Amino acid sequence: MARLKLKLQLYCGDEIAVGPGKADLLEAIAREGSISAAGRALGMSYRRAWLLVDTMNRCFAKPLVEAHPGGGKGAGAKLTTEGEAALTAYRALSAQIEQSAAGADFAALEMAIRSEPARRD
Amino acid sequence: MARLKLKLQLYCGDEIAVGPGKADLLEAIAREGSISAAGRALGMSYRRAWLLVDTMNRCFAKPLVEAHPGGGKGAGAKLTTEGEAALTAYRALSAQIEQSAAGADFAALEMAIRSEPARRD
Repeated sequence: MARLKLKLQLYCGDEIAVGPGKADLLEAIAREGSISAAGRALGMSYRRAWLLVDTMNRCFAKPLVEAHPGGGKGAGAKLTTEGEAALTAYRALSAQIEQSAAGADFAALEMAIRSEPARRD
Repeated sequence: MARLKLKLQLYCGDEIAVGPGKADLLEAIAREGSISAAGRALGMSYRRAWLLVDTMNRCFAKPLVEAHPGGGKGAGAKLTTEGEAALTAYRALSAQIEQSAAGADFAALEMAIRSEPARRD
C-alpha cells in the first residue's frame, strides 16, 4: 500500500492538537533533548518548533513537553509522561487506520490508478 | 468523533491522483455539469479546477471527467463511468477508515485533549 497516504489530525477547538508534524516533533524532542535541536533536525526554525510545542501544551489537559530554557546544566526539553503516552497513542492509531484501509474500495482505486501519471498532451 | 480529521490521499508517482479536494471537485462536476461551474461552487478559479481535473485524468487509467468545451449546446463536463466509480470508492474508503479509528488509542487521545485550547500565559 505504498501509494496510500493518510493524514490523521486531532483538533482542539480550531487548533490541531496533534498531527503528523507535531508527532514528528515530539519524537525529535525525545531523541534530541531540546526544542531547538529537535527543530534543527526537522529543518524548522526554533520559533516554529516552539509554537508547535506551545499549541500542543495548550491543547492537552497536561503539557506534553517540559522545557527548561537557558544554556546551563539541566537546560533542554523532554516529553512528560503524558507526552510519551500521546505520541504512542497517535502512532498506534495511525498504524491501525492505515491497516484498516485494506479492502475492496482500496483495491478498486489502486487498480484504476496508473503507476505514473500520463504526460500532458 | 467530531474532533478527528482524516485526510486520505492516493498517489500516482509524485502526484495526488485523488484526495479530499479532488473528490469534492468530482462531486461538484457531477452536480453542476461543467468544470467552471464546479470550480465556482467550490470557490476555486477555472484554471485551478481545470488543472485538478487534468491531474486526475492523467493519474487514472481512464479519464474520470469528460469535458466538452465551448459555449454551445452539449458543452460542459460530466463524470465518466470510471469517474463515478472512483468517487464512490473514495467516499466509501474514507468512511471505512473514519470508522476504524474507534478504539483504545483514539479514546486515550480524545480524553487527553481539551475541548478548547488553554490561553497563552
